[in-house]
Amino acid sequence: MIDAEHFVCPGFRAAGCACGIKKNGEPDLALIVADEPAAAAAVFTKNRVKAAPVLVAAERVGGGTVRAVLMNSGNANACTGTEGMLAARKTTGAVADILDCSEALVVPASTGVIGAPLPVDPIISSVDRLSQTLSPTGFVDAARAVMTTDTFPKLARRPVVIGDREYSVLGFAKGAGMIRPDMATMLSLVVTDAPIAPDMLRCALTEAVEGTFNAVTVDGDTSTNDMVLLLSGGKGSFLDEAGIDIWYENLHSVLSELAELIVRDGEGATKFVTVTVTGAPDEITARRTAYAVAESPLVKTAFFGADPNWGRIMGAVGMVPGDFDPNRADISIDGVPVAADGLGTGSEAERDASRIMTGPEFTVTIDLKSGDGSFSVMTTDLSYEYVRINADYRS
Amino acid sequence: MIDAEHFVCPGFRAAGCACGIKKNGEPDLALIVADEPAAAAAVFTKNRVKAAPVLVAAERVGGGTVRAVLMNSGNANACTGTEGMLAARKTTGAVADILDCSEALVVPASTGVIGAPLPVDPIISSVDRLSQTLSPTGFVDAARAVMTTDTFPKLARRPVVIGDREYSVLGFAKGAGMIRPDMATMLSLVVTDAPIAPDMLRCALTEAVEGTFNAVTVDGDTSTNDMVLLLSGGKGSFLDEAGIDIWYENLHSVLSELAELIVRDGEGATKFVTVTVTGAPDEITARRTAYAVAESPLVKTAFFGADPNWGRIMGAVGMVPGDFDPNRADISIDGVPVAADGLGTGSEAERDASRIMTGPEFTVTIDLKSGDGSFSVMTTDLSYEYVRINADYRS
Repeated sequence: MIDAEHFVCPGFRAAGCACGIKKNGEPDLALIVADEPAAAAAVFTKNRVKAAPVLVAAERVGGGTVRAVLMNSGNANACTGTEGMLAARKTTGAVADILDCSEALVVPASTGVIGAPLPVDPIISSVDRLSQTLSPTGFVDAARAVMTTDTFPKLARRPVVIGDREYSVLGFAKGAGMIRPDMATMLSLVVTDAPIAPDMLRCALTEAVEGTFNAVTVDGDTSTNDMVLLLSGGKGSFLDEAGIDIWYENLHSVLSELAELIVRDGEGATKFVTVTVTGAPDEITARRTAYAVAESPLVKTAFFGADPNWGRIMGAVGMVPGDFDPNRADISIDGVPVAADGLGTGSEAERDASRIMTGPEFTVTIDLKSGDGSFSVMTTDLSYEYVRINADYRS
Repeated sequence: MIDAEHFVCPGFRAAGCACGIKKNGEPDLALIVADEPAAAAAVFTKNRVKAAPVLVAAERVGGGTVRAVLMNSGNANACTGTEGMLAARKTTGAVADILDCSEALVVPASTGVIGAPLPVDPIISSVDRLSQTLSPTGFVDAARAVMTTDTFPKLARRPVVIGDREYSVLGFAKGAGMIRPDMATMLSLVVTDAPIAPDMLRCALTEAVEGTFNAVTVDGDTSTNDMVLLLSGGKGSFLDEAGIDIWYENLHSVLSELAELIVRDGEGATKFVTVTVTGAPDEITARRTAYAVAESPLVKTAFFGADPNWGRIMGAVGMVPGDFDPNRADISIDGVPVAADGLGTGSEAERDASRIMTGPEFTVTIDLKSGDGSFSVMTTDLSYEYVRINADYRS
């Protein structure tokens, strides 16, 4: 049971409901409102095919201030042309009317099936009701309303103690497919009541996303709808440098927890696997190698089968260019070395590793022994269930 | 039933047997011998982790002449260090002894589990027996002996009529996993009795592989053991230019049929899908786009589910850089347009497309409307069975 009382942030209220986009009657519409216009920053998908809500959101967040976010699941409003742009504007316009603010202050976000027209009327006719249920403890309902193939709502909160003041960082997210998380939508909204200068907000978000959401999503490889939005509703003078440091640490921690929850709820995932590359000539090479391994379907099916198939890992490492000799890699699983200098360490080690891999969580470490570069990626196994979910998703 | 009498090429004999590498007693060792030393050309994996047989074969084919090829399945002899190199030399040495030729004329090829020592003794003690069963009609047995997860042996032959002479091009291959064919081994051997100059042999193979095997395998993205070997045992003066053209056409045709057989037998495949990109600004962009779509697990699971989910195709197209607007793509399935100018054409078209996709074979065409570049890739769906095969492969 999720404690809705825990997931609060002064100055923000939220609500979720089922407006009828999803045929099964599950929640599919969320509204998040700042009591006063909040400073805003966002990171968007790098996909060249961008959904209408992404285009509208980018324009509006560019204005620097946001009053409300209207999110829906069940329909991505992507590849919907001018009708889709109009739909995003109409639905957020309905929110603006109720809040009596400019529609330029209302940001849309959508996730779900691509290419189907967004059902505008059910959304508009639910917005009034939704606004009446806005509550400081409504974030769990909002998180539930953006779920697609997620099996649980994903929220994280950190108190931020600076001197004698306590602020909050509160975030929620929806998950994504886990073979290539890039191709399924990741949405996240983070709010804080700490007063942060807009420029600082942008920098902080960009930096924090790098080692968190981007450690489960390949750079530049993103879906049509991906979006991470950060709102600061803090009043009074901005935090000083020391305060910013403390706040940033907690922002990073919230994003990190949400990223981990996304991986744990990966489509059909039965195992949570961390792939850590060390000893790379540089961080970029470490990152590329970690992804080559973490994204290899052959490696991921071996995870599912609890098979310490280090040969497949070597094959993936061998695809990565860079100033290192892939034939000399050391590979271990939760500290059990299965390959040293590119050669197997024997069947006893493999038995030990296999025993570890039958568990729900383990770390694969690959030491390239060619420098100080390191990077970790969180991933999952590839199971029957993944195929079922993605073959049946629209039916 | 495969007609062994059909798959012959004058000047070459072959045999296959079970020597005990595979625990289940299936055939796992093949020997192919040219009556006289044959001119040889080869294309090898671009993976930086190369199996011992690849290293030995590259050195020996570099000599330009080959007398025999010793192939095994069940063990890749990859990531096996100096012991692996020794094993490749010892086993091919045993063949050289029997044929009374230099071991530099015997080429090894292996496929199977990576990282386990090659069982040298069972191979050596079978080579004599194998050589005694060499036969012009033994290619089907050889093709059977290199199978791993393949469900049928893959052979193709073309008669080559030049003037009043008839030559042959005969090839066989073993298949590969089909999500990323690159990560599972593809082995192929092609023999011909047409007399071809060694330089011409190399050019012809490199060019013919491009539009055939490389249309199911991403360039540069290959396993530790991939190898395509072409031997010409032809005597007399080399073919003239007109003769070469006819011969090349048939070589290409054999490789093309083998590539198609590999895809049709893709691991767990239930559907054979051709992804054709037209209207790209250039061929490289067409190729990249075709692969982005053909390799997307979300697209492939939709194929499995007979779901004309063109939105996922748009998402994949949007990841490809290049001088075209992905938002304007047309997408059709066996001629039924499901998206035009980046927008869906309606539920009736989708129903028609879905009906087509329930069949075993269809073509997805993506027109980028930005030039003359085009490329086709053969692929499969992603099924439960793929996961099962690859999770269980070593156990």
